[in-house]
Amino acid sequence: MILAIDIGGTQFGLALASPDGRLVRRARGRTDRAGGAPWMIERILEAGHKLLGRSPKAVSACGVAFGGPVDFEAQRIVNSTHVDGWDGVALPEIIGKSLGLRAVVDNDANVGALGEFTFGAGAGSRNLVYYNIGTGIGGGIIIDGDIYRGSDGNAGELGHCPILPDGPRCDCGNRGCLESLCSGKSIGNRAAEAVRKHSRRGRAIVECGDGEVSARSVFDAARKGDRLALDIVEETCRYLGMSMATAMNAFAPDAIVVGGSVSKAGQVLFDSLREQASRFVMPVHRPHLKIKRAKRGGNSQLLGAAALARSNATTDGHR
Amino acid sequence: MILAIDIGGTQFGLALASPDGRLVRRARGRTDRAGGAPWMIERILEAGHKLLGRSPKAVSACGVAFGGPVDFEAQRIVNSTHVDGWDGVALPEIIGKSLGLRAVVDNDANVGALGEFTFGAGAGSRNLVYYNIGTGIGGGIIIDGDIYRGSDGNAGELGHCPILPDGPRCDCGNRGCLESLCSGKSIGNRAAEAVRKHSRRGRAIVECGDGEVSARSVFDAARKGDRLALDIVEETCRYLGMSMATAMNAFAPDAIVVGGSVSKAGQVLFDSLREQASRFVMPVHRPHLKIKRAKRGGNSQLLGAAALARSNATTDGHR
Repeated sequence: MILAIDIGGTQFGLALASPDGRLVRRARGRTDRAGGAPWMIERILEAGHKLLGRSPKAVSACGVAFGGPVDFEAQRIVNSTHVDGWDGVALPEIIGKSLGLRAVVDNDANVGALGEFTFGAGAGSRNLVYYNIGTGIGGGIIIDGDIYRGSDGNAGELGHCPILPDGPRCDCGNRGCLESLCSGKSIGNRAAEAVRKHSRRGRAIVECGDGEVSARSVFDAARKGDRLALDIVEETCRYLGMSMATAMNAFAPDAIVVGGSVSKAGQVLFDSLREQASRFVMPVHRPHLKIKRAKRGGNSQLLGAAALARSNATTDGHR
Repeated sequence: MILAIDIGGTQFGLALASPDGRLVRRARGRTDRAGGAPWMIERILEAGHKLLGRSPKAVSACGVAFGGPVDFEAQRIVNSTHVDGWDGVALPEIIGKSLGLRAVVDNDANVGALGEFTFGAGAGSRNLVYYNIGTGIGGGIIIDGDIYRGSDGNAGELGHCPILPDGPRCDCGNRGCLESLCSGKSIGNRAAEAVRKHSRRGRAIVECGDGEVSARSVFDAARKGDRLALDIVEETCRYLGMSMATAMNAFAPDAIVVGGSVSKAGQVLFDSLREQASRFVMPVHRPHLKIKRAKRGGNSQLLGAAALARSNATTDGHR
């Protein structure tokens, strides 16, 4: 068994994972911004001890998905934009000392990619590109079965590829990144602006959100056939489709897998996404373009963390 | 020694390459569109026989760079947009029978990437992204020292990544691909349009080209400080910079190497390219972004073909 930990911006989760990708025990909690990293580490270790005590079999290692940049070589957190106090924290070392397990950490998009590759929509493939579209947009690349990290360790940052040179300001400091246009938050922002401009046409979107405009209310209204909502979905998928066409042209993966909260929009999103990406992709790649919804949903990260710990253990064993 | 062959759209070249990347004997000729593939294959075999006869040492294998899509697995040409009759030609087999050498072929962008990686601006790196900007735009990706081909064999097609969704028609059939904006031909087209619009402001560009407007006349005029030419160069580098920022974010290579006829523009191109790519790249990658001019110029393909033949021979030897 592996102890898998997923630390996100708003909540965290732990589970015991079996080698065949089942999560047999679980614990979860909400992030407390005020408590910062120390509070959160304490909660995680506490929950970890409990899970270890309840494990039906021996637990051999621990894998962690972290919602922020990670220095994988050094096995340290770089920082978190959601919770203070994470800068430079050597989380695997802390876990190792407290729980007596060898631990390994990577950013949650890489880990999600590995989770879907090993146990989800990417099973059976060799090369995979993964988009995690939630509050932000993360990317993870699998090449020949391994997470591809590139020369500086930060490959796969698909959310910050420029789409509109003079587009909206992105959290990264640049303008017009994919994330600044198509993350859940950004879809909500674009919708709010559209509703302000066209207050009558925007009524359905507002009603679907019970007065609040969000990515969710846009997709809900689009599913009911609302014109303005469908326009916003199409624009979203045009940007995402451009990015996915580029990913296909450059990486030629077996599949592009889309996870994260926005992927829950389902068919109304994926139909448009496939149409737009297919329009932009180079003809030679068009027959091979496969855009799939993540199969393990909110568990991609936990399962990926388990797979990461397992492959890392194997690597160490070979040394 | 290796027999290296480079088959382009307008000319072809052959050379004997030493293991340390010197080209010791050479032959070249111009493509004859009317003669088609059979005529050209005859010329190449003829020149190949001559070079083999004049080689100072034994020649062990043959590598070929082809200016068009190649089915690497099947070792066949897919087609050529420049010369008829190449569809499905098993060129290595033909070379093998005629010259008695084991031969291997790949498309010229992949091979150029390998040439610069092994003997040029990418020497000493592990991961590399290569742009060949000439009549069209080809791309080649090196990951962990090998050409990366992806699951369908056509990875690295950086020239056909969408930049402007409603941009000019591209030879591939789509709109607004990088190639449709920034290839030598496309820069010339955009310049011709600008000169038509602003006939007075365009005078310097026309004069630099002795009456003809081309990518070359634009860079020549820009070097002299002409405002319109500098605007066209900046626009070109904005599009290329967006693409290179995406390549950096996604692949995080040690270097991005730019070859092909357009790269001969030198500093006036590269200064602007570095500025624009740096503006668009994700901050975490900015300190690692290196955009280099190809070191082996017109020889990247021949040297890459030699490296391809050598690594392939090694692979076979391991079997």
